[in-house]
Amino acid sequence: MLENIRSPLDLRTLSEEELKSLSAEIRQTVLQTVSRNGGHLASNLGMTEAVIAIHKNFHSPDDKIIFDVSHQCYAHKLLTGRYEKFSTLRKKDGISGFTNREESEHDILTEGHSGSSVSAALGIAQANRLKGNEHYTVAVVGDGSLTNGMIYEALNNCAGRPLNLIIILNDNDMSISRNIGGLHEYLSGIRTSKRYYRLKKHTEKIMKKIPLVGNPLLIGSKKLKDATKRFFVKNNIFEDLGLIYLGPVDGHNFEKMDIVLEEAKSKHTCCIVHMVTKKGIGYAFSEAEPDKYHAVGPFDLQKGFAAPSSDTYSFKAGEILCAKAKEDTSVCAITAAMCEGTGLSAFSKAYPDRFFDVGIAEEHAITFAGGLAANDMKPAVFLYSTFAQRVYDQISHDIAIQKLPLLLAIDRAGLVAGDGITHQGIFDYALFSSVPGTEILMPETYAELEHAFSEGLANEKISVIRYPKGKYESYPLPFSMLSCGNLFTYSENIETAETVVITAGRLTANAAAAIARTGKNIALVKLIRVFPIPAPELLALLGHAKRIYLLEEGFEQGGFAQKTAALIQNRNIKIHAVCDFVPHGALSDLFWLCGFTEEQLAQAFSSFDET
Amino acid sequence: MLENIRSPLDLRTLSEEELKSLSAEIRQTVLQTVSRNGGHLASNLGMTEAVIAIHKNFHSPDDKIIFDVSHQCYAHKLLTGRYEKFSTLRKKDGISGFTNREESEHDILTEGHSGSSVSAALGIAQANRLKGNEHYTVAVVGDGSLTNGMIYEALNNCAGRPLNLIIILNDNDMSISRNIGGLHEYLSGIRTSKRYYRLKKHTEKIMKKIPLVGNPLLIGSKKLKDATKRFFVKNNIFEDLGLIYLGPVDGHNFEKMDIVLEEAKSKHTCCIVHMVTKKGIGYAFSEAEPDKYHAVGPFDLQKGFAAPSSDTYSFKAGEILCAKAKEDTSVCAITAAMCEGTGLSAFSKAYPDRFFDVGIAEEHAITFAGGLAANDMKPAVFLYSTFAQRVYDQISHDIAIQKLPLLLAIDRAGLVAGDGITHQGIFDYALFSSVPGTEILMPETYAELEHAFSEGLANEKISVIRYPKGKYESYPLPFSMLSCGNLFTYSENIETAETVVITAGRLTANAAAAIARTGKNIALVKLIRVFPIPAPELLALLGHAKRIYLLEEGFEQGGFAQKTAALIQNRNIKIHAVCDFVPHGALSDLFWLCGFTEEQLAQAFSSFDET
Repeated sequence: MLENIRSPLDLRTLSEEELKSLSAEIRQTVLQTVSRNGGHLASNLGMTEAVIAIHKNFHSPDDKIIFDVSHQCYAHKLLTGRYEKFSTLRKKDGISGFTNREESEHDILTEGHSGSSVSAALGIAQANRLKGNEHYTVAVVGDGSLTNGMIYEALNNCAGRPLNLIIILNDNDMSISRNIGGLHEYLSGIRTSKRYYRLKKHTEKIMKKIPLVGNPLLIGSKKLKDATKRFFVKNNIFEDLGLIYLGPVDGHNFEKMDIVLEEAKSKHTCCIVHMVTKKGIGYAFSEAEPDKYHAVGPFDLQKGFAAPSSDTYSFKAGEILCAKAKEDTSVCAITAAMCEGTGLSAFSKAYPDRFFDVGIAEEHAITFAGGLAANDMKPAVFLYSTFAQRVYDQISHDIAIQKLPLLLAIDRAGLVAGDGITHQGIFDYALFSSVPGTEILMPETYAELEHAFSEGLANEKISVIRYPKGKYESYPLPFSMLSCGNLFTYSENIETAETVVITAGRLTANAAAAIARTGKNIALVKLIRVFPIPAPELLALLGHAKRIYLLEEGFEQGGFAQKTAALIQNRNIKIHAVCDFVPHGALSDLFWLCGFTEEQLAQAFSSFDET
Repeated sequence: MLENIRSPLDLRTLSEEELKSLSAEIRQTVLQTVSRNGGHLASNLGMTEAVIAIHKNFHSPDDKIIFDVSHQCYAHKLLTGRYEKFSTLRKKDGISGFTNREESEHDILTEGHSGSSVSAALGIAQANRLKGNEHYTVAVVGDGSLTNGMIYEALNNCAGRPLNLIIILNDNDMSISRNIGGLHEYLSGIRTSKRYYRLKKHTEKIMKKIPLVGNPLLIGSKKLKDATKRFFVKNNIFEDLGLIYLGPVDGHNFEKMDIVLEEAKSKHTCCIVHMVTKKGIGYAFSEAEPDKYHAVGPFDLQKGFAAPSSDTYSFKAGEILCAKAKEDTSVCAITAAMCEGTGLSAFSKAYPDRFFDVGIAEEHAITFAGGLAANDMKPAVFLYSTFAQRVYDQISHDIAIQKLPLLLAIDRAGLVAGDGITHQGIFDYALFSSVPGTEILMPETYAELEHAFSEGLANEKISVIRYPKGKYESYPLPFSMLSCGNLFTYSENIETAETVVITAGRLTANAAAAIARTGKNIALVKLIRVFPIPAPELLALLGHAKRIYLLEEGFEQGGFAQKTAALIQNRNIKIHAVCDFVPHGALSDLFWLCGFTEEQLAQAFSSFDET
C-alpha cells in the first residue's frame, strides 16, 4: 500500500484498518532500511501512527510540519513521495536521515539540533497571521527537548498568541511510559466521548503516583528528563504558560488522535497536544531496549544490534577520565544528554557523585562546570562538536573571562558519516580559537589522546581536545616522524624538502600515503597543538621550505590552516580545508567531496610541488 | 557610617535604625557617583536594603554571593571594602561597574551576561557538597532574567538537590510592583509571626487579580517579562520545579528579610527567596521613570537625565528600518529586550504587529526570525555584539543551513566604554565569518549604514551589519578617497604608496589622521564589506604595495586582519588588532590600551614604513 501513497492527501481515504496495515508497512520499511544503512530506529518505530495521523489531519505543505531534531521523520518521508528512494537513506545523494529543505517541499526546515523547532514554528505561524492566511503550523517535539532552554524561551513567547500553532509533544520515554500505564488503561476505556482528551484531573491523579526523583545526586539523563516531563505534565506548566493543553492521547490510536487534532485545529491559539507513544514498538529487540536502538549502525534484523565497540576515541576518552578520577578526587565529568555517545557510561557508574548529565542543555553544562572549577573541582565537559556550537558565549563569559580552567572534550570533531549537514563537526575550531586564552589539541593516536587529557587537566587554561567519531587505525609511514615536544611531529626529510604539508588529526594518514604516492621529497608536519599555532617552533623548522600546503579537516574560515597562513610570509601557501556545509554520505564520500582522499591529495601535492 | 564598613561583618552589630541610615548613605553615594560617571542607577537604588540584608545574613566570601548580570552590585561593592575607590567607578583602573574577580575576593565571578548566575551557583554549591563543607551559595537574579533559557536549564537542574543554594529573585518591575500593592499592604500588616513569608494562598489570591496579558500582538518586553513573572510566581513554578519557595518578602524591610533568609538557610535544599523591591527608590526622577534610569550617562542630579541623543548609529538604524518597513510590509524587527538601546522604539510604535521583543532570549530571537523568513517575511534582528555571542548555532543551524535571508544588526560592535570586559563587542566578526554564506558589512558613515541596510534587506543572504555605540563624527581627510563599488574606499595615492593601511569602521578616522601626522606617502583602504574579504578587487589594488598594515578594532583571532593576511603572499604584513579581553575605561583609554590612538598609530605606521 505504501508505494501507492504519493502524497499525504492519499491518507484521507484510508479506513482505520488500512491505516493500521500502512503503519505495519512503514515499520517494515524502516526496519529493513535502518538495519542495512544504519540510522534512527526506536523513535521512528514509535512515531509511525502519530506521523500518519498528523499528515492525515493537516495539509502539508500549506500547513507546515516541523520536526524537532527530526531524527523521527522517516514515516514523514515515506508519506511524502520518498518511498522509492528510501533505500538510499543516509547515503551520498540519497535520502537524508533528517528533514531537509532541499529534498522536498514537505521538509520545511533542515533540522538536527534540539529545541529549535518551536521558535521556528512560532515565526512561521506569526508570518501566516501577518499574511492573513489560516494555515496551520505544527511542531513535533520529543520529550527530551523539554530540558533545553530554547524550547522554554519559545514556549514563553507563544503564551496566549492567537496563532494556528500546534505543538505536538511526543512523550515516548520508556520509564514514564511504564509508570503511566494506568493512564493507558483509562484511555482505552473511553471510546465515544470527546471528553477523554481533556483529562486533567485524571491525569493529575495518575501523575501523582509517579514516584519522585530518587537520590538527586544520582540524577542521570533519564531521571532529569522524567523530572522535567513530570514538571511540565503533572503540573500542567503548558497551561500555566498560557498554552491550551490537550491530552494525553494514545499516539498509536488513529481515532483518538483524529479527535484531539481536530480539537486543536479549532482553537486558533497556540496549543500543546500531548501524545504518548511507545519507543521502539514493532520490533522485539527495540521494544525491549529502546535506548540501545535510538541510533544504530547496520545490523542483522534476526540477531539485533551488537554492543558498540570499545575501540573508539569516545570509549578511550571515557576510560582515560576514569583513570584520572581515580587519582584525583576533584575530577568531574559533565555531559549534555550524551553519556553513552561520549563514552562516559563507565565514569557515570564508577563516580556517580562526580558525574553530571544536565540534559540537552549545553549552555548550562559549561557554566555549571565553571562553577565547579571556581570552587576547586576539575571539570571535564564532553560535547559533540556540532552541539558545542551553542556554547561560545559560555566558554568566553563564564570560563575564559573568569580565568577558570576547563577541559572541553569535543567528540565527533571533523566530518561525520551518515547524519549530514547538521551534524558535521567542522566549526568548533574557529569558535573556540576565537576565545582569548584557549588551547586546542587534536590528538591522533590514543597515546596522544591520553597525553592531551593529562595536559588539559593539569593546566590552568581552557583546553579543548577534539577527536573524531570512530577509532584510530594505525598506518604505514613513508618516513620516520620526529617530535617537537607535544606541539607537533614532523617527517625526517623536513630539512631537504621544498614542499611541506602541514595537517592534523586523522587526515595525517591520507596525507602521508599521498606523499608516498607522489614519490617526491615532500615533508609532513602533524600538528597536535593546533591552537595557539606553535609559530616559533614551526617557523624555525620551515627555513628550507618554499611551499606550504595547509590541510585541514575543518571549515576554512577561522581554521588552523588560515591562521597558519596568516603567520607565514614570503612563501607559496595553499590552504585546503572545508569550504561549505557538508551533506550526508559515507566518510569516504565526504572525504572525496572535500578532496581529502589519498588519490586526490597525491595529485594536489604533486601539482603544488611543481609551482 | 559607610566609611567605617570595612567588611560585611561590620553589618552584624548595626541596629535597624543604623541599617536604615546606612541605606541612605549608600543611595547618596550611588547617586553622586553615577551622576558623575554614568552607570546603572535604578536597580542599584532598588536593591540597597536587599544587598545589605544578604551581606548581613551570609558570610562572604566563604558563602559565595553571585549577582546575575551584576549591574546591581554597587551596594555590594560599597560594603566589601571599595567605598574609598568608588568614585573611580567605570573609569580606567577604577572600580568596575560589574562584579569582577580581579577586584575583590567578594566578587566570585566577573559577570555581565544574563542568565548564567544560577548555573554557576549550582556548580559552586555542588563543589561545596563534594568538598564536604556547609557554606552557602547565593544567586541574586533579576526578574528580567527569567525570560532567558539558561536560567530555566539551571533551575531545572537544581530540582530537589540537597545543596545550600539560595536563589534570590529580585522582583523590581514597576508594573508588577504597582499591581501587587495589595501584597505590600498584607505584608506590612505582619510583624511577629514567622508564617508571613509563606503566603502561598494569600499570594495566589492577590496574584489572580493581576490582569492577564493584553493583546498578545502588543506584547513588548515589559509585558513578556510580566507574563513570565506571573507564570513563575502566580503558578509557583519554582515549587513545581522542586525548589523550595519562600516569599514574597518586602525587599526594603530588614526585619522581614532577616527572617526569610534565616529560614532559607535552614532548608539545606535549593531555595528561591522572592523579594519585591521598588526600582529607582530614593531619587524622585528614577522613582517616576525607573526604566529611563536603568543605565545612564553622566547627568545633573537636580535636573535629571536628558533624553538620549538621536544622533547615534542605533537611532539612525531604527530610523532606516522604519523607512524600509513603510515601503515593504514584509519587513519585521526583532530584539532581545533591547528595544530602546538598539533604536527600535519608533519602529515598535509605528509597526507594532511587525515588532517582536522576545525577552532576554537571543537564541530564540534568531530562530524565530528564521521562521518568519521561511514564510516570506524579511526579518531584521537587532542585538548588542556581546550578547550576539550566544547565537552562533542558531545563525548556522537555523538560518544558514536553511539558506534563509536575515539581516542581523550588531549594535555596540567594537570597543565599548564604561561597561568593561563582559561588554566589549570584539568577537562577533570571528563568529559570524565562520558561518558559511554570511556577509559582514561595517559601515562608517550614516550613508553607508543606510546602504548596508538596503543591501542586507534586498539580498538572500545572512547580512551582518556591525556598528559601534555612539555617533559618527566627520573628520578631515589628508587625501581624497575613491570607491571600489560598495566594497571599500581607498586613498588616491594607492598607486604610488609602498605602505598601505587597511582598516574599517570608525578606526578609519584615527588611521587617516595618523597617516597625515607621519607626513609619509602611506595609502589607506577602508573596507566596508569586511567579509568575505573582497580579495580580487583588493589584490588588484595592492600591486605596488610592499607593506600592508592591517588594523582592526576587533579580536585578532578570526578577525578580518588575520583573514586578509592569509590571502596576501610575498608582502610584508603587520596585523594590529585586539589581542585579549579589554577592561573598562573611557573609549580613549581603551583605544590607548589597544594602540589605536592617533599618536600610537602614527608611530606604528612610521616604523612599519621603514621596514
